Amino acid sequence: MPQSNDLHQDLVVFDGLVISNWNRAVFEDMRTGGLTAANCTCSVWENFAETMRNIAHWNRHFADHSDILTKARSVADIRAAKLAGRTAIVLGFQNTSAFEDQLGYIELFKDMGVGIAQMTYNTQNLSGCGCYESIDRGLSDFGHDVVAEMNRVGMMCDLSHVGGRTARDVIDASKKPVCFSHCLPAALKTHPRNKSDEDLRYIVDRGGFVGVTMFSAFLPKGTDSTVDDYVAAMDYVIDLVGEDAIGFGTDFTQGYGKSFFDWLNHDKGHGRKLTDFGRVTNPKGFESIGQYPNLTAAMEKAGWPLGRIRKVMGENWLRILDEVWDI
Amino acid sequence: MPQSNDLHQDLVVFDGLVISNWNRAVFEDMRTGGLTAANCTCSVWENFAETMRNIAHWNRHFADHSDILTKARSVADIRAAKLAGRTAIVLGFQNTSAFEDQLGYIELFKDMGVGIAQMTYNTQNLSGCGCYESIDRGLSDFGHDVVAEMNRVGMMCDLSHVGGRTARDVIDASKKPVCFSHCLPAALKTHPRNKSDEDLRYIVDRGGFVGVTMFSAFLPKGTDSTVDDYVAAMDYVIDLVGEDAIGFGTDFTQGYGKSFFDWLNHDKGHGRKLTDFGRVTNPKGFESIGQYPNLTAAMEKAGWPLGRIRKVMGENWLRILDEVWDI
Repeated sequence: MPQSNDLHQDLVVFDGLVISNWNRAVFEDMRTGGLTAANCTCSVWENFAETMRNIAHWNRHFADHSDILTKARSVADIRAAKLAGRTAIVLGFQNTSAFEDQLGYIELFKDMGVGIAQMTYNTQNLSGCGCYESIDRGLSDFGHDVVAEMNRVGMMCDLSHVGGRTARDVIDASKKPVCFSHCLPAALKTHPRNKSDEDLRYIVDRGGFVGVTMFSAFLPKGTDSTVDDYVAAMDYVIDLVGEDAIGFGTDFTQGYGKSFFDWLNHDKGHGRKLTDFGRVTNPKGFESIGQYPNLTAAMEKAGWPLGRIRKVMGENWLRILDEVWDI
Repeated sequence: MPQSNDLHQDLVVFDGLVISNWNRAVFEDMRTGGLTAANCTCSVWENFAETMRNIAHWNRHFADHSDILTKARSVADIRAAKLAGRTAIVLGFQNTSAFEDQLGYIELFKDMGVGIAQMTYNTQNLSGCGCYESIDRGLSDFGHDVVAEMNRVGMMCDLSHVGGRTARDVIDASKKPVCFSHCLPAALKTHPRNKSDEDLRYIVDRGGFVGVTMFSAFLPKGTDSTVDDYVAAMDYVIDLVGEDAIGFGTDFTQGYGKSFFDWLNHDKGHGRKLTDFGRVTNPKGFESIGQYPNLTAAMEKAGWPLGRIRKVMGENWLRILDEVWDI
């Protein structure tokens, strides 16, 4: 078996969720970490026009940093980026607020490279309920129309911050695989953002996907967690649903501080406070985007066979995305 | 007792809902009909910017037709308009889509003269569910925030097109009286838009208000209905909840044709079809805005005492609006 770093360089490394303060330093760190591709958030609370501006800004990044960065519209783009030594960016939403009340906007965003969108972020939107809404009221009629349109244009439905009932409604309604791009098991820690064993089985049994996250507030050891604890959480999910429908989604918020977390943490960015993150830290040994090799090393340390490492580090994500995007 | 027309000229005539194709002809017809004031819809499916444009257009009407028209921000404005021989316009919304995700927008609209807003139009929005949503999921957490802010700035919550569960949630949450500005009793005709006896009692028992509408599809005789049938529907409501918390809201759509009804009739104006209105006609004898005197005459014909006519034609509306607007 090769040494971790040689192995890591050989892998497809796909991060199911990154929401960092986008700039050259972060993009260079992606190269340092050997990151092949990632679902990078470009809309959380934003409306249509604000999200369009964010994407225009991303397009500027693609032009300015084309030596190390490229937009991914397909799995072929991701594989080509790996060969070229660039990191491929899948533009993603953590909310459907950018769709506003226009089903026709979904295809516009898909054309710009948005390959994945979370149905709602923490609270209720036009489509359904988030995990911090006091009552999860399920997927609305409009939400059903949104799922059908996302299926049609090939945009993956993400359910990480979505409430349990709405998530099941989406899983049942979608004709394409859906995912939790970044979540942890509630069996390890009770938290509104964590998913029960039943939730995890429900999505995988229906062809869906689980990206395991490492956000310290959702891990059993909290801010004392290490990269080994992160791999242990993945092991828990693998024991539950097998190793073929799982990947990882770190939720790296590199370069952001309090004002950003305050914005995330209030309804629509400025309304009532939804929860308290506490101190945002990453697991020891995996503090920054440059340290993806340490994740591979921790998997090796945990005794994972090479095939499993390959799949969980990225190949599984590519397979499921191909299934959704191939319309 | 005076003759109908003399009596009518003496009355405060308040129409709880008019959504017509605004132009000089309609405004002149308001004068012909002796209309003192009306809740005039300036937003249905529109977002913030679109609604702002509609209000700017209304302000142009107020300037261009100041001989017969004026904006009403208070009940005093309405009484002054009657003395001056102008019709006072209460700008109103049939949806909270114009608020988008910004609680702060509510006060902006109040400052422009928006005195009443329906929480949702037919389907689910950020606040709650409409009467044609397949499941009424109740008032969202954001919807609670919207009600509190409307209470604070003095904007009346209208529940006519709102689903039953969401309506009750709003009635329970609001610290100010709320209304069905334009509805009919389900006891006379079963229809998703009509309100059960329990719904009507629930709102009135909690200080709320019922404006009776005349939309033919919701009346037992449908397109064969007459102005006398309209008064009979009011009698039904009065028998149920008394004569002090009731007014009328015609839903006059004067000057509009098929494309307008198609827009109303599809989710967000362009999504899935929600219902079928059939042919839109008004009760015989009350076909146009110029014919409000015929409503007064029908009340006299029905043997209503003068005090009741005075209250239901407008004084009740003014009392309840004063209660909501007096902050």
